Amino acid sequence: MPLPDDFARALADRYGKRFSTAEAVRAHHGHDESHFPDALPDAVVWPHATAEVVDIVRLCHRHRVPLIPFGAGSSLEGHILATRGGLSMDLSEMNRIVALHAEDMDAVVHPGVTRKALNAALHGSGLFFPIDPGADASLGGMASTRASGTNAVRYGTMRDNVLGLEVVLADGRVIRTGGRARKSSAGYDLTRLFVGAEGTLGVITELTVRLHPLPEAISSATCAFPDVASAVRTVIQTIQLGVPVARIELLDALTVKAVNRYSKTTLREAPMLFFEFHGSPTGVEEQARSVQELARDNGGQDFEWATRQEDRTRLWQARHEVLHASINLLPGCKAISTDVCVPISRLAEAIAGTQDDIAASGLIAPIVGHVGDGNFHVVILTEPDNPAQVHAAEALGRRIVERALRLDGTCTGEHGIGIGKQDFLLAEHGDGVAVMRSLKATLDPLNLMNPGKIFAAAGD
Amino acid sequence: MPLPDDFARALADRYGKRFSTAEAVRAHHGHDESHFPDALPDAVVWPHATAEVVDIVRLCHRHRVPLIPFGAGSSLEGHILATRGGLSMDLSEMNRIVALHAEDMDAVVHPGVTRKALNAALHGSGLFFPIDPGADASLGGMASTRASGTNAVRYGTMRDNVLGLEVVLADGRVIRTGGRARKSSAGYDLTRLFVGAEGTLGVITELTVRLHPLPEAISSATCAFPDVASAVRTVIQTIQLGVPVARIELLDALTVKAVNRYSKTTLREAPMLFFEFHGSPTGVEEQARSVQELARDNGGQDFEWATRQEDRTRLWQARHEVLHASINLLPGCKAISTDVCVPISRLAEAIAGTQDDIAASGLIAPIVGHVGDGNFHVVILTEPDNPAQVHAAEALGRRIVERALRLDGTCTGEHGIGIGKQDFLLAEHGDGVAVMRSLKATLDPLNLMNPGKIFAAAGD
Repeated sequence: MPLPDDFARALADRYGKRFSTAEAVRAHHGHDESHFPDALPDAVVWPHATAEVVDIVRLCHRHRVPLIPFGAGSSLEGHILATRGGLSMDLSEMNRIVALHAEDMDAVVHPGVTRKALNAALHGSGLFFPIDPGADASLGGMASTRASGTNAVRYGTMRDNVLGLEVVLADGRVIRTGGRARKSSAGYDLTRLFVGAEGTLGVITELTVRLHPLPEAISSATCAFPDVASAVRTVIQTIQLGVPVARIELLDALTVKAVNRYSKTTLREAPMLFFEFHGSPTGVEEQARSVQELARDNGGQDFEWATRQEDRTRLWQARHEVLHASINLLPGCKAISTDVCVPISRLAEAIAGTQDDIAASGLIAPIVGHVGDGNFHVVILTEPDNPAQVHAAEALGRRIVERALRLDGTCTGEHGIGIGKQDFLLAEHGDGVAVMRSLKATLDPLNLMNPGKIFAAAGD
Repeated sequence: MPLPDDFARALADRYGKRFSTAEAVRAHHGHDESHFPDALPDAVVWPHATAEVVDIVRLCHRHRVPLIPFGAGSSLEGHILATRGGLSMDLSEMNRIVALHAEDMDAVVHPGVTRKALNAALHGSGLFFPIDPGADASLGGMASTRASGTNAVRYGTMRDNVLGLEVVLADGRVIRTGGRARKSSAGYDLTRLFVGAEGTLGVITELTVRLHPLPEAISSATCAFPDVASAVRTVIQTIQLGVPVARIELLDALTVKAVNRYSKTTLREAPMLFFEFHGSPTGVEEQARSVQELARDNGGQDFEWATRQEDRTRLWQARHEVLHASINLLPGCKAISTDVCVPISRLAEAIAGTQDDIAASGLIAPIVGHVGDGNFHVVILTEPDNPAQVHAAEALGRRIVERALRLDGTCTGEHGIGIGKQDFLLAEHGDGVAVMRSLKATLDPLNLMNPGKIFAAAGD
């Protein structure tokens, strides 16, 4: 369904070059990092201020045009695909850091600010923002998918690090969901309602986020293990011992191989844990000693320290490139990235079962994970024109999620539901999904805000 | 309005002695620890299982009877007062610990389990549950008010420590809002919607809560300061330095006097900070050293260590008795407990202004606070039959909240809105309250779940 003429004309009049229906622009906005087919919006608009977002949302409301908030386009479950057409609202030019309150360790930012841009702005302040999904995602997008990353085991996820939001609702009303106090018992937690709502309840136009003091000392290490099970046992024991590790990441042998090839590292091609410790110099040393002992007890070898800043940067850069490194294992392939999270005591079982499934599938599928949270990903690679492989990959992905649910886990630790996991959401939350639907119908009765994502809305 | 005959008969038939309309029972359930006048329910029922809660909720729904979930009756904003009559549902006998997962550091509990009962059950497990409001509140009640306490600066509030809930909705549907995974991006965050909803959206019938490893070493200390401002400066610097203190509590001189008198302690009657440090032996020592230096720089004196377990217990017991100790300063008085929270950089200003207001009011009003979060309470005492004093106390309470809001803070850090702070909620959240109201109307269209709390519902 094309856009109504007067709608498109109004946007063109008001936003000039910041409104586009060009094919290339639409293609860029109808494509994310998931394996789902592209779905192009009918047009794209770049607002620069909340008042413009309000204006555009009201136009969409009046003309019944679906609206899809777009950040960096790095989502992994098809969140920004325009499966029902409509207008893509690209928030990347709403990218001002509105305020830095170093003394309160918070920042007020526009939704288009990326995590790297925020950290660059914090340079010299003694503070940092820890949430780090692989991509340089926008903070609005990260809030919308309740993103996390390698630091979540110590610093939490977007759920924990957003203090408050400004949101434009489907009817154009603007609300603020929280102030800068560290805690509040004032009414319903609207902040947490919009964090993770994947743009289906409104457009986030400002975020107040928590910052953290840069640790006095940091050290990173890698350790190779004879098998994934030994590595996982080390992780479980570390968490249960209460060691406040900042990062504890698992890479299976295939992932390490992919990383060596893509990021030019020379890691031993065995299952590995990457660690990072934050604290005072003695605290860091103490944590590292505890973990090193646990690793040794579990057969860990080659505990190697990355003490220099540049070595650490290289190591974590390589870790963040894992998705691209994995895809690079099979040139021209499509990648399906799974994202389950289980209670830590079930992690060994979840991963062992997954390894068996991968072996049985015959597919190339490296495993990597934020294992301190019980969260791991399998990057399943398929040749693009091999329907049997795609079929096998989908079956493998399903088995991994079904096992996680049987083990009291969740179908997504950090990527979100998007269009890819709606059946699993139902399996996981049952009648809770009906409640989610009723909240959606209340706040977006015309089903215009990123429609078709998370669940089929009432009346769909 | 009396209860419909057939409603009361049905409950009496089904619940026998677990249903009561006796005056003394109703009086107990129409009274909390706030200063608001008692408001008795028409009857009380004690369910023992989720199925019974569903049955009772359905009866209330059919007969249009208001339902008020009741835990320990220790709330401070009138949450459990039956201002519109109806049925009080006392959940204290739904008090089973359903499961302890030591290896995953979580517990599944019924809503009537109190924080002390949970910690007693954890004895010997190496784990503890940190959230500690003054009273031995029920966990269902604590979730409903988004409670916190002295440990929140390190361990977070109920918002952070509830992994998932089972909730009976107003129409009798039962939903589970989350599993046991540490993090999830699966759909809207229903857990956080019910945490802090004060029983207005449903009845919590089960909670999965996070537990924490008992620290290897603990040390507590007190330090006296020449004035409140010096103590507050020490707090601000401690937080900004990133010292992971477990507790950092302020007592003004009057509070210390009250504590000495009530809890038979012999603390110097000056503004004081109570500290607790958790960690490894060297970590604790390091933290303590950092804080001791900051305190000394700010004129702190008499840094005294409570190293023995019994001294520590005594100290924190005394801290938890502050409300009762304060009330005891003016025998027979009524106490209004204020509860603001501001960004840490504004704490000195907030407290200094509050001290001026107290002095101008001529009232007895000790100050105490979880100052590491920017949260503090003033316990304003009034003679019961002195309307001028009550008037002055209310005016003082208002000034304290208005200042907190001007300083980017919140009208309640941990007590909730109840019936006492609805105007402030509007001042703080504006149109957000309309959104809250619409969520309430969606989930409880007949306005039967704890009606009249947090805000006037649609149609009120």
